[in-house]
Amino acid sequence: MTAPRPRVGHIQFLNCLPIYWGLVRSGALLDVELTKDTPDRLNDALVAGTLDIGPISLVEYLRNADHLLLLPDLAVGSDGPVLSVNLVTQRPLSEVRRVALGSTSRTSVRLARMWLREVHGVEPEYFECPPDLTAMLLEADAAVLIGDTALRATYDAPRRGLEVHDLGAAWREWSGLPMVFAVWAARRDYAAANPGLVKDVHEAFVRSRDEALLHVDDIAAQAARWEVFDAPTLATYFRTLDFRLGERQLAGLQEFARRAGLPVEPAFAEV
Amino acid sequence: MTAPRPRVGHIQFLNCLPIYWGLVRSGALLDVELTKDTPDRLNDALVAGTLDIGPISLVEYLRNADHLLLLPDLAVGSDGPVLSVNLVTQRPLSEVRRVALGSTSRTSVRLARMWLREVHGVEPEYFECPPDLTAMLLEADAAVLIGDTALRATYDAPRRGLEVHDLGAAWREWSGLPMVFAVWAARRDYAAANPGLVKDVHEAFVRSRDEALLHVDDIAAQAARWEVFDAPTLATYFRTLDFRLGERQLAGLQEFARRAGLPVEPAFAEV
Repeated sequence: MTAPRPRVGHIQFLNCLPIYWGLVRSGALLDVELTKDTPDRLNDALVAGTLDIGPISLVEYLRNADHLLLLPDLAVGSDGPVLSVNLVTQRPLSEVRRVALGSTSRTSVRLARMWLREVHGVEPEYFECPPDLTAMLLEADAAVLIGDTALRATYDAPRRGLEVHDLGAAWREWSGLPMVFAVWAARRDYAAANPGLVKDVHEAFVRSRDEALLHVDDIAAQAARWEVFDAPTLATYFRTLDFRLGERQLAGLQEFARRAGLPVEPAFAEV
Repeated sequence: MTAPRPRVGHIQFLNCLPIYWGLVRSGALLDVELTKDTPDRLNDALVAGTLDIGPISLVEYLRNADHLLLLPDLAVGSDGPVLSVNLVTQRPLSEVRRVALGSTSRTSVRLARMWLREVHGVEPEYFECPPDLTAMLLEADAAVLIGDTALRATYDAPRRGLEVHDLGAAWREWSGLPMVFAVWAARRDYAAANPGLVKDVHEAFVRSRDEALLHVDDIAAQAARWEVFDAPTLATYFRTLDFRLGERQLAGLQEFARRAGLPVEPAFAEV
């Protein structure tokens, strides 16, 4: 009996473009059924079981760890500024009363809440809305943005007199550790039934990531044809991101879980 | 101002796997926003303008030629048997009264109707239903199948005492010409605004097709890991398909249009 191709998720944001580039260049794409989508929807699909393997927001992983196994070595995070997970404010942090959330992705939201409460002593009201900075700031003192919209705000918002707080940098300053925004996981039932395929997909992703990191300038130049960012900005961004899940990143992950009051004994897939 | 990546369709059937393989291998995939779907849904999307460029069923192209420009050199057809566009019957053709249509894709359906009426003198009743051969033949004397389901029927149906009429072979015998089931087209408004991008996409597809045809056995071996067909069957299938739109294929296209009573003055994109 032939197994179908593993159903694998891919974050349709610039942050994961290097990994996609690697999957294309290595041909690994031909051996997976790839679903490109927003992080929120990929989280839901992996938890619901319509995807077998994929990236998942750290908080969603921690909440669903009973059904998931982490893939080693691979993450989306930063050891300092991340450029694309921001709290954008139009008044001093101590005066923030209403915060618009441009995503339901819980990791950045949880980080923003913790940081505002623990570091700045404020507990504003939060509400969700579409990720449009101008619209968000009509109704709120501050906005949490992730992904490409956040990256744009990093460069544009200061010109509009707004303050951009990079939540990767904020976490690093607060904890001394890297921040892990997303990890890769396989469903436990899928991994139990298809250990070889999980191993193959993991290897393909790690190889793709490694290959991509050798070609950051090429990837940035090619993507700049289509994106609103120029090649140097994209190259800087790709080099800023931390795609590793090594000891230091794992310590950051565990420290975040501890501070967020989430259970954490990460179980890894055998690969 | 940066143009977004062209929104390009891709038929999620084995018949277009060689082209996808070529797009991956050449890296051209990185410069398009590819939507993989069934032919029916891709037809609708190109006509509705949610895709800019893509494959389209020949009949749908002919019906919407005012809004579309053909891409030269590229098609999905056959010069004789195609293996994956079938009329499967459980009684002699002259006794067929009810035909189940497993697709709303109009080219195969139109071809089946014309062939049954003109060659076999029967005008059965037709109705649409999901492409499940067993279910179809509970309610009908015959079934029109396309794509992977049809390819499976080519090999399985004879063992079940059913007769498989290959509609590519039927057309060739009837007209002496190749059959063109699908062409590639760009929306005229898109081509007018983005002539360079249409040219780039066309070149990428033709290059991918040519490259794939040099590696048919490799593609078949890789795909056989995941598909219900073995590598030799897949290789035979890929070699059976005719991805060209040359003079002979164009003559077949025009003859089909003439017999179907559809207007035909194909207008090509300048590439």
